[in-house]
Amino acid sequence: MPPPPPAWVQALKPAGPQGSELLAAERAQSAVGVDALAELLHSRESLDRQKELVALLQSEAVFDKSQSQSLGRVERLQRALAKGKRLHQLAVERRWSLEEYHAAAGLIGEPTPYALHASMFLVTLREQSNPEQRKLFLERAEKYEIIGCYAQTELGHGSNVRGLETTATWNPEDKTFTLHSPTLTASKWWIGSLGRTANHAVVMAQLFVAGKNYGPHPFVVQIRDLETHQPLENVYVGDIGPKFGYNTMDNGFLLFNNIKIPHISMLARFSRIDPKTNQYVRPALPTLVYGTMTWVRANIVLDAGSVLARGVTIATRYCAVRRQFQDRDADRNAGETQVLNYKMVQIRLLPLLASMYALHFTGRGTMKLYQENQSRMNAATQSNGQDSRSPGPEELRAGADLLADLHATSCGLKALASTTAGEGLEICRRACGGHGYSSYSGIGPWYSDYLPTLTWEGDNYMLTQQVARYLLKSARAVLAGKGTGNDTSQILQSYLARKDKGASFDILEEDSEVVAAFAWRTAYLTFEALKHRDVEKRSWNSLLVDFWRLSTAHSQYLVVKNFHEAVSSPELVASVDAATAAVLRKLFRLYALHTLEREAADFFASGAVTTRQLTLTRTKAVLGLLDEIRPHAVRLVDAWQIPDWVLDSSLGRADGNVYEDLFRRASQENPVNDLVFDPYPWNKEVLKAPLPSKLSKL
Amino acid sequence: MPPPPPAWVQALKPAGPQGSELLAAERAQSAVGVDALAELLHSRESLDRQKELVALLQSEAVFDKSQSQSLGRVERLQRALAKGKRLHQLAVERRWSLEEYHAAAGLIGEPTPYALHASMFLVTLREQSNPEQRKLFLERAEKYEIIGCYAQTELGHGSNVRGLETTATWNPEDKTFTLHSPTLTASKWWIGSLGRTANHAVVMAQLFVAGKNYGPHPFVVQIRDLETHQPLENVYVGDIGPKFGYNTMDNGFLLFNNIKIPHISMLARFSRIDPKTNQYVRPALPTLVYGTMTWVRANIVLDAGSVLARGVTIATRYCAVRRQFQDRDADRNAGETQVLNYKMVQIRLLPLLASMYALHFTGRGTMKLYQENQSRMNAATQSNGQDSRSPGPEELRAGADLLADLHATSCGLKALASTTAGEGLEICRRACGGHGYSSYSGIGPWYSDYLPTLTWEGDNYMLTQQVARYLLKSARAVLAGKGTGNDTSQILQSYLARKDKGASFDILEEDSEVVAAFAWRTAYLTFEALKHRDVEKRSWNSLLVDFWRLSTAHSQYLVVKNFHEAVSSPELVASVDAATAAVLRKLFRLYALHTLEREAADFFASGAVTTRQLTLTRTKAVLGLLDEIRPHAVRLVDAWQIPDWVLDSSLGRADGNVYEDLFRRASQENPVNDLVFDPYPWNKEVLKAPLPSKLSKL
Repeated sequence: MPPPPPAWVQALKPAGPQGSELLAAERAQSAVGVDALAELLHSRESLDRQKELVALLQSEAVFDKSQSQSLGRVERLQRALAKGKRLHQLAVERRWSLEEYHAAAGLIGEPTPYALHASMFLVTLREQSNPEQRKLFLERAEKYEIIGCYAQTELGHGSNVRGLETTATWNPEDKTFTLHSPTLTASKWWIGSLGRTANHAVVMAQLFVAGKNYGPHPFVVQIRDLETHQPLENVYVGDIGPKFGYNTMDNGFLLFNNIKIPHISMLARFSRIDPKTNQYVRPALPTLVYGTMTWVRANIVLDAGSVLARGVTIATRYCAVRRQFQDRDADRNAGETQVLNYKMVQIRLLPLLASMYALHFTGRGTMKLYQENQSRMNAATQSNGQDSRSPGPEELRAGADLLADLHATSCGLKALASTTAGEGLEICRRACGGHGYSSYSGIGPWYSDYLPTLTWEGDNYMLTQQVARYLLKSARAVLAGKGTGNDTSQILQSYLARKDKGASFDILEEDSEVVAAFAWRTAYLTFEALKHRDVEKRSWNSLLVDFWRLSTAHSQYLVVKNFHEAVSSPELVASVDAATAAVLRKLFRLYALHTLEREAADFFASGAVTTRQLTLTRTKAVLGLLDEIRPHAVRLVDAWQIPDWVLDSSLGRADGNVYEDLFRRASQENPVNDLVFDPYPWNKEVLKAPLPSKLSKL
Repeated sequence: MPPPPPAWVQALKPAGPQGSELLAAERAQSAVGVDALAELLHSRESLDRQKELVALLQSEAVFDKSQSQSLGRVERLQRALAKGKRLHQLAVERRWSLEEYHAAAGLIGEPTPYALHASMFLVTLREQSNPEQRKLFLERAEKYEIIGCYAQTELGHGSNVRGLETTATWNPEDKTFTLHSPTLTASKWWIGSLGRTANHAVVMAQLFVAGKNYGPHPFVVQIRDLETHQPLENVYVGDIGPKFGYNTMDNGFLLFNNIKIPHISMLARFSRIDPKTNQYVRPALPTLVYGTMTWVRANIVLDAGSVLARGVTIATRYCAVRRQFQDRDADRNAGETQVLNYKMVQIRLLPLLASMYALHFTGRGTMKLYQENQSRMNAATQSNGQDSRSPGPEELRAGADLLADLHATSCGLKALASTTAGEGLEICRRACGGHGYSSYSGIGPWYSDYLPTLTWEGDNYMLTQQVARYLLKSARAVLAGKGTGNDTSQILQSYLARKDKGASFDILEEDSEVVAAFAWRTAYLTFEALKHRDVEKRSWNSLLVDFWRLSTAHSQYLVVKNFHEAVSSPELVASVDAATAAVLRKLFRLYALHTLEREAADFFASGAVTTRQLTLTRTKAVLGLLDEIRPHAVRLVDAWQIPDWVLDSSLGRADGNVYEDLFRRASQENPVNDLVFDPYPWNKEVLKAPLPSKLSKL
């Protein structure tokens, strides 16, 4: 690395006022209770754990982040594996719980090549092994004696799992399966941890028994030698190359040339081949996965809030430190204005500040509903019929109904939340002006790594069809007088009841009326879509755009509803002081009214609001909320308590020393500054020959 | 690089139908005249030149692109300098014109460290040197004896040039300037070609003469030794570090510690210091830059079309090759559907296909207007008063008026066009599903490199204020009966004339009515904004969001108008056959109606269209146009004739061999596959020790 700058450079300071002074003034002008709010968001326990872990990780050189964005893929990948190894060693040394391990892995700021082993491989083995397989695979995997991955997606097949081409054919004569890739598009592709790291894979393949295809099933397959780490014979495996982000992960490809694997390879908890009869045995609990997917998606919604919070924290602090131009109406002698004072910046950042809270509370609300329902259903299953006061089939049916509702709504929420977070990060990056483009902003690298979330666990566009399908089904039930009484049924029913009178909601005065307007819009769009499909008999394909719009509308309703419940909840009042609670309620209004304004055409067409209300929302209500929230912006991001080491951003530093840090990194941590170019085009060499000693002493 | 795959892998093909067959079918089903259309877009001459240059560049190993996304910054930068050197050598050897040189530089797919020398440094020297300076600086710079950059932006100062902190103080005693960076935020920052390459810089600094600040002026300053390439004393210079893109450019920082530079350093064509009197001499032609900026921005609009065309070409071809799921209403035995058949894909891609044509014709229209006006004004200036039939002061005034109009409209168009292209690339990337995330898609790297265009030559949000200011001024003039008769005045006048009657335009039948509806909306929003500012006396800051909306609306009107003129022009009819012309008119309608639908609230509020028309636009017109344009999509992108070598995309290959190419690159061009990991966490080493010879022979 380059030598430190000369004394005259070290003596320079940014022009005043200093970033630290500006942030201090921001914090002084707001009474938002940062600590209590942080505890409400994250719990004291998890904040304490985060503090300890950051101190530990930051003290180890292997976790250094300073070179990540300068290195090439080969070196980044090696360093990421080194991080993964050290993380595992720490977990063993310190007897971390799984939760602690995942918290630590989340803090280091990039995925490691162990990530898919530690998640999907272990989870699949845990959920789908029989006892013998647990012993053979899971126990060794937990000790990292075997390292695995989860190989589902293929080169030619993403979302459509039924279209997978890899086959596993049962051989009754020797009780084995033959695993085969019949085409190039059958190659497994995108498989995390596979490219260079894994020696085992859970492979999803079409199961053929006696010529019949039983659909995709999971098989545990060894792919590399445990000693030499070379691919086994008739296995072709490698890394799929550089990506827009996620370059510390070895996403891989995998082809099989008719390899034989033993009977035990097929994960057999749910369905299996009986080796004696050579018969396929059907799964016992076909809908179990249903719940897990809901849980995974609710987690994505919760995470989306935190992901967005990183970007908003960085942009908000930097826009409070950065000053540019005078306000046109201001006194000529005034200095330049903090960028955060400009309405054009506020309208981009503050609704995202509201969104990160909205998504957090929505994720939490969905998770809570899911967990409550799971325990209720478990209780019902266990005690059914044994006790007259215990839950009966009624409760089970209600539980299954709620689960179906949760499944559909979690699809829509996953799409809305991850799109909001992904696109929101880019809005934050641009709100930082030119410096947002520097990797030292910390936003760009994070954005690049986050984008796959918009595609995995269901492509965000594909998912919206599931939401629409569920809403259409619910609407048909409601029209047939068979509404289930869950929230979706209720909003459809109350729309039908009021439809002829029409409804204009008092969105400018009453928070609950804003929620009702969003519900109304969902119901209106649902019945419109139903008319197109069932009455006008329009093709499914011609309705996809309407369905996407409908799913978005419904998910926005759910976010507004969850956020409203959170800011009106007794928990909130008990946790934070009145001033803080009042600011959170303003955030709710900003989220809701800004969304309503952006989607004005829908709200107007449905008759939920009048044009006059829309005009007032745009010209008065939203602008007023920006004014009211502006003084609290820095404290509202402080409350997320994202450590500087995690933000890894010059612009977003909690102390406001933006320019000093940009300068330090550029001049001291930038390997490019070790190069001496030969700038003349007629000299073929790019680097200067080493200087003669006399010159270099000058 | 890794060895070739084994024979059984080499024998594999993608599952059928093959990509080449699918693209052949696409091309067979449309009669769009690709060659004639290509010539209309780019001219035969430039298509021929492109072909020659690609063949030449592709034949030289130094221009190889295959490793770019895998390498770290240090190596990428060195390779980019090598490309720049070789490009210069070729230009000398083959006596390229400037145009040929820039065409070649555009084809290699990344900026080189010479880029700012070859553009801004030379342009500034050419435009602002006096004869002595041309000899001393420009002639040597053209021969690359000195290598320069253009140092304006500072660490603390981006858009606001008046806020620059670097000072140049005139010393009357020894006829020199003292160049100084008084603070850390005064450091020049983001300066292309400065970090490691340049030995000279044009430095913009506040000129102080006898204690008075005359504002920012350009100074030519040597910063590195011409032999050793080491920074001169009291100059601190380096590279600013990794970025979201543009990593083959050495954007740099630069600080001065009271260095003295001679009188000749100040570029003196327009303003200067008289060394005898020590007086500042005012610029002769203060508004000259005005025109150049308009020209630069019109070029950005034109480029935006081509940038977007890259993404749309890639996504359209890939979505024609990629098949996923069956259509829900289709026969159960049908194979998977081409993704391009899904309405949810069409609604994302086809309006962008229309946009790339729209931006191209708009850029071209703006450029033509500008050039016609420049020649008219030159003629007027030269012949004024010497010939009774020649243009007089009237014409000059009209010319200046048109230039003012062009300046304002080019600001808005630059913002709209670059935002459309930047965001459009990301939409194209996502439309490619999972593989869009691979660097081999060719979209991600291009997106990352393009993003700065949204910030430079005027930040896209800042620029919209200039448009609004001009529109408000025009509206005030029109209200005072002083309209100038230019297009802006006309649309404002005709709005006033019809306002009381109201206007509902027949957008579903008449193309010219669609243009009129866009004009109406601009005028409506202009007078609304004027009311807020002049009658309600609202603060400038509180109107920034309205101004941004207004500028966007006006720019959309201009695009719609230019596109409409282009598809109705005699030039078009003379150049392409009737079927092709008809498809282009459909593209115009799709661009216009899709934009209208997206901005429905404005159109409705202004009374330009009824809700019934909006509903029909959404449910019938736009969907109908998607159906009609769909069969021509591949030919419409083929017509842009972007060579495969330039696209550098597995997904966008003209031959449709998507999967073969993805697989070849991943397995054969990916340096990660040379690594052999030691996967076990208790072994500290990341790479396996070399295999014992016996094992490695197995």
